[in-house]
This record gives sequence, C-alpha cells and structure tokens, in this order.
Amino acid sequence: MATWANGVRAVLLDISGVLYDSGGAAGGTVIPGSIEAVNRIRHSGLKLRFCTNESQATRSHFVRKLQRFGFTISEDEVTAPGPAARNLLKERGLRPHLLVHDDLLPEFDSVDISEPNCVIIGDAAENFSYQNLNRAFQALLNMEKPILISLGKGRYYKETDGLKLDVGAYMKALEYACDIPAEVVGKPSPNFFMSALAEMGVKPDEALMVGDDLVNDIGGAQSCGIRAVLVRTGKYRPSDEKHPDVTANGYVDNLAQAVDLLLSSQGSHL
Amino acid sequence: MATWANGVRAVLLDISGVLYDSGGAAGGTVIPGSIEAVNRIRHSGLKLRFCTNESQATRSHFVRKLQRFGFTISEDEVTAPGPAARNLLKERGLRPHLLVHDDLLPEFDSVDISEPNCVIIGDAAENFSYQNLNRAFQALLNMEKPILISLGKGRYYKETDGLKLDVGAYMKALEYACDIPAEVVGKPSPNFFMSALAEMGVKPDEALMVGDDLVNDIGGAQSCGIRAVLVRTGKYRPSDEKHPDVTANGYVDNLAQAVDLLLSSQGSHL
Repeated sequence: MATWANGVRAVLLDISGVLYDSGGAAGGTVIPGSIEAVNRIRHSGLKLRFCTNESQATRSHFVRKLQRFGFTISEDEVTAPGPAARNLLKERGLRPHLLVHDDLLPEFDSVDISEPNCVIIGDAAENFSYQNLNRAFQALLNMEKPILISLGKGRYYKETDGLKLDVGAYMKALEYACDIPAEVVGKPSPNFFMSALAEMGVKPDEALMVGDDLVNDIGGAQSCGIRAVLVRTGKYRPSDEKHPDVTANGYVDNLAQAVDLLLSSQGSHL
Repeated sequence: MATWANGVRAVLLDISGVLYDSGGAAGGTVIPGSIEAVNRIRHSGLKLRFCTNESQATRSHFVRKLQRFGFTISEDEVTAPGPAARNLLKERGLRPHLLVHDDLLPEFDSVDISEPNCVIIGDAAENFSYQNLNRAFQALLNMEKPILISLGKGRYYKETDGLKLDVGAYMKALEYACDIPAEVVGKPSPNFFMSALAEMGVKPDEALMVGDDLVNDIGGAQSCGIRAVLVRTGKYRPSDEKHPDVTANGYVDNLAQAVDLLLSSQGSHL
C-alpha cells in the first residue's frame, strides 16, 4: 500500500518527463505506459489536470502534439505559464520585451510590446543566443524599475539527445547581471499550483502531484500542502532520492506505476 | 588633497573601461588622457602593474593591441586570469573543457584537454551560444566531482556598441544548473590581487587600485587592504556611488584625473 495515495481525489500531472520526453525530429518520445495511465485516471473518476512549465510553444500547440502522440488531453485541462503570464501582464499593465521560443510568441499576439517595462523569459532554446541575452539585459537596464518575469525556474530538462539548460539558468544570469530578483510564473510558484487546484475545485490535501522535477514539481507542490510523487523518468537522477531539502511522498518507476498504486489504493477504500 | 593618495608607492590599473573601451571594428576606443596618464605614472617613480580580468584574448594578444593604441605596456606587467588559470590547472592536475573566446585558446595550447575533469569559462562572447552552454553543462554533469572555474565574475562590461553580459552571468547560470559554486580566477579573488602585489614587492597598504568595476575592482582590492578609486568611465553608472555594500576610497572622472590627484599628493610629500 502506498500511503501517499490515501484520500486522493484529484491528480496533477507534469507533462515533460512524465508523459513524454521532448526533442528530436518527431518532437519527442512517449514514455511507455503513460498514454494508458492517463486514460485510467480519467476512467477512475478522479479529477485530472495537467500542470506544466512548458514554455517552448503555445498551450494549443503542445496540446495538439500530445494528441498526435495518442494522449487524451484538451487545452482547457492544462495550466501553463504562457497564459498565466499573459493574464499577469494585463492585470499590471506591463508591456514585455520577450525572450521566448518562436513557437510561444502567438500566446502574446494580443499584448502591447511597445516601450517595454518588463522582460519575460521562457524556455527560448535556440533563441538563447549571446545577442538575444544581451538585448534582454540591455532592455532591463534601460528600465527605471527593471522587472524580470521568468516562465518557470527549472535548472535543466531532458531532451531525446541529452540534458539541456532550462530557463532557470538564464533567469539566474539576468538576475545576477541586473542585481534584481525575478518573478516566477509557473512551478514552483504557489499561485500556479493553487490556480490549478481551483480549476478542479479541490483542496491541497485532496490532490496528488506527479512530476520528474524534485524541486519544482515535488517541493513546489508540497509547499502548498499537496502530496507529490517523483517518477524515475525524464530528468530524474538517482541523487534526487537523497536530496538534502526535498523528500517526495513517494518514488515510482514511471507514471504507469504511480497510477497502479493510486488506483489500487482507491479500490481498497471503496 | 585626495586622502586616498597618501603614501601610495604602487599603482594597480584595470585595463578595460580605464585605459580603453573594447569593441567595434578597431577593437576599441582609447579613453581620453589615459595614454599620457600611464606615462606619467611611469615617470613618477611609482611602481605600476596592470590587473585585468580580460579573458577574450591571450595576454600577448591584448597587450599588442594596447601597444598599437599607443600605450606603453609589456606582457610581463600584466596580471590576467588566463595565465593564472593555466598555472592552477598544472598545480592541481586538472584537464579542462574550455568555454572561452577563440582568441584565448592559445593560452591553453600546452594543456591536456582529454577526458575533462573541470570546466573553464571565460568571457567567451559569441561563443556563449545555446549549444556551447549546453555542452559545458553536460560536461560538468558527467564529472564525478564537477569543478567549474570562472575567469572573473563580472556582471557586465561596456563595449563601444553597448553593455554586454560578462562571464559572471554565465557562471551563475552554470552554478545554478549544476548546484555547485564556481571557483573564480581573477578579480575579486584575493589571490589574484596578492599575486599582482607580490610582482611589485609592495604591501597592500602601499598600493592603489584604479578600476571601473565597483564590486570586482574596488570591493575586491579593499578586501585585501588595498585602497581603491573608481573612475567614471567604462561601465561606471551613477548608482555606483550609492552602492549599499561597497564605497570606493575616491571617485574620479577618469584615469587622468586620478593620476593628477595622485601625483600632486606625491609632490606635496616629497
């Protein structure tokens, strides 16, 4: 029996490293068993939401990719930093200088980007060039009160051809150069997890997060009172199981095993 | 009278932002009055040494450039991080993966770079590409005990076409991604200042540092007991004069003014 499974009514799933590994010509590789695992959660009656820091593409773009891979998923089931940042810009009247992936740009189509008074960085991948980083840095230094908004703060992630630096590394570079702290939109920001819970109408202690990022998925969820299980897929490294600060509520080989344990626990309580 | 000038027997000069601003087709622009200022220090009988974090080129390469601009300077008068790092590799039996400027590579010609057990980053400029940063990151993660050596930790510097991110920003990115602290070779490392003083045979309280970088030049020198004066050239910004942690012993418009004040103080004590 997995004690972390007791009383779970809702599941939050990370996407990259849990459902699939991104990268390569096909856009990624499905992690074995994960398509069926998502379907089993749906059929179980548990509430389900996807909670991702994906910022290499618009939400509609990467949801379509997951659908092509065979996942049952719709755009309105996904909490992602792009749409969250767009809402934040509107609320605060901010006009961004964007250092993001080309495929994320349509998320900001309706946004005024003249005379920027903030910089938004996402996982820009190839757009993280020397020139573009200097431009974002110069834009910040030109602001009376520089505001740096980072879509997530991941250290690295796994693509099919190896580990890649994530947006958090570039966030640290700009924080240091400008001597300012960034505002993070996405995991591990508590606002982000709480808005995902609100969408499902559940309380933190009724939810379970499943992710491959110990600090952002597991630590972030736990700081909101959400239980969290680490999968040994994606960016997982064995050292994650002896981290000095973050201990997951459970460790599983993959999403399929997490769902096995979760549903057998549910069954035993019915 | 400038009290910071009393009893000075030796002068340490930063190069970029004090003697010239780098960048552009000509390789830089001389800061007015600085050629004569260097000559006046030489004729005064004060000891003189250059103490730079320049890591975009070999020491011999950038000394030749300064000579072409009209400066009287020789390679053996310059303390620079490239040669210091080469010595450190030898002492500790380290084999580097190099993420540095192409023009710095000859500094490491005699160094074994097979099966790297450390990463060295310098001011790589255009070589700070997304691909190269991922390679350096992957090299670190592949090491049993990752060692990151950074040639300086500057936040940014001024080129003729604007401010550019310096090596310190990229150092922070890799530190964060790998969760390790870097070892800094260059200013503000005390070893670096002390080796420059040893070359001149003077004690810290007999020396004066002149630089444009408040934290690395001024704070670094002061932490060794060396007085330090900030010039209002190079990367200087007015906010440097109200920094919460570092206060220079003096603020001058440029090197020429620093030397005026220094030599008139010397004169009054002769």
